[in-house]
Amino acid sequence: MQGLEFTLSSFSSPLLAWKPEMTNTREKRKPFDCEYAEQKLWKHPQLRVCRGISSVDSICFLWPSNSEGAGKVSLLKKVPALKDGDFTLAECTAILLYLSRKYNTPDHWYPSDIQKRAQVDEYLSWHHANIRANAPKTMWIKVLIPLFTGQPLPSEKLQEVMEGLSTSLKQFEERFLQDKAFIIGSEISLADLVAIVELMQPVGVGCDIFEDRPRLKEWRRRVEDAVGKELFFQAHEMILNIKELSNIQIDPQLKEHLAPVLMKMLK
Amino acid sequence: MQGLEFTLSSFSSPLLAWKPEMTNTREKRKPFDCEYAEQKLWKHPQLRVCRGISSVDSICFLWPSNSEGAGKVSLLKKVPALKDGDFTLAECTAILLYLSRKYNTPDHWYPSDIQKRAQVDEYLSWHHANIRANAPKTMWIKVLIPLFTGQPLPSEKLQEVMEGLSTSLKQFEERFLQDKAFIIGSEISLADLVAIVELMQPVGVGCDIFEDRPRLKEWRRRVEDAVGKELFFQAHEMILNIKELSNIQIDPQLKEHLAPVLMKMLK
Repeated sequence: MQGLEFTLSSFSSPLLAWKPEMTNTREKRKPFDCEYAEQKLWKHPQLRVCRGISSVDSICFLWPSNSEGAGKVSLLKKVPALKDGDFTLAECTAILLYLSRKYNTPDHWYPSDIQKRAQVDEYLSWHHANIRANAPKTMWIKVLIPLFTGQPLPSEKLQEVMEGLSTSLKQFEERFLQDKAFIIGSEISLADLVAIVELMQPVGVGCDIFEDRPRLKEWRRRVEDAVGKELFFQAHEMILNIKELSNIQIDPQLKEHLAPVLMKMLK
Repeated sequence: MQGLEFTLSSFSSPLLAWKPEMTNTREKRKPFDCEYAEQKLWKHPQLRVCRGISSVDSICFLWPSNSEGAGKVSLLKKVPALKDGDFTLAECTAILLYLSRKYNTPDHWYPSDIQKRAQVDEYLSWHHANIRANAPKTMWIKVLIPLFTGQPLPSEKLQEVMEGLSTSLKQFEERFLQDKAFIIGSEISLADLVAIVELMQPVGVGCDIFEDRPRLKEWRRRVEDAVGKELFFQAHEMILNIKELSNIQIDPQLKEHLAPVLMKMLK
């Protein structure tokens, strides 16, 4: 039987949680072994969804050793990417939705009720230009860009990003979360999962955005409980320890190639 | 029977195409009557989808006369917004998907085949940080910001945006369009519709991105044919004539309020 293949970031610590459940696993973990890996290292919420998959043991996780590897799986040359027979798919939310349909995951992840489903879609659409546009930048500014350029960014840059994130979080609390347990009501959905993985990145670099936001903090606690604390922390292990990256040696050629790209990203 | 309500931009020329099919229409069209209207004026692909709706005559289109009006319909205070009884929904793609499910629109818009559906989702996700992040900026730079600030932006600003757009269009052609008639194959889908409305904005301000791109140009022609040329041009009438806005008088208070917001958007 042809299994699914995922091309994931080399930071894929969440996969550890899956190890006992997988066969045909190729573990080739190198830091920064795919040029898009860093951009996507927070993109693994599908792992939780996969928990509902019955044919888990036919899944093959594949870490590409270079961008060609990713290119073979995904035309977008991005991770994560999914390969299901001849069918390839990029983009985290598209993969999540595909898996939820293919494996008929529990209804709450992407409810069959069309209004609840629309609320998930509403969040997933809003997410891009708001939470996703801001939260990951904290990690770039505090860890990844200094790692590649050898220089810290001016503190105003972080302040600017934190202000944008603050505005997004206010909207997230007031317009999406309100007084509900989760985004669409009393049960966790893909919307919460996509949100939380992005919001753990500032935490990993010392910007604890939950600290002075009790409503957000309570929501995070509920998401942790719903996912399972062990899996939650395994999934975020690399992100929560990202500062350790500061000590690794980066190939000078890669540095030279990536530094201008990174600087442009945060222009 | 309680009809659906849409809160749309005051630029909603596409609605003219719908006039004969609507009852209970309130027409209060004022330029810039909603602070988010300008950001969303290209967001009406749902109109085409609605063509497949059987209960069209129960739809009520509502133009709010101020941002409070939009706020009443959508918690996100953004247009477009949909109100279906007590249920409200913002975000263009979420509205499109909701309508396609509620009214069981022709299958090709959002195919029941899970791989084709995943391809639509893949595009819709990629769209945000690529086509959508670049194409509308041309209109802001060439028309809207000068209108509100009274000053043209330096030409390097447009050049920078056009470079970003060019990269996105290359990916769009090579990775999504390839040698297919439409994004998911031989039939038009929501992905093409969401893409085209964004790409008509540079055209409206004199940056004809189709000119030197024969593959893209052919795709546009096929989309026009699939939508129907008359509806296509009605839907884009305001955008294609957006330069006429340069002659209108803007309320000085609104100018004062919006100018810094606009400048920040393009920082």
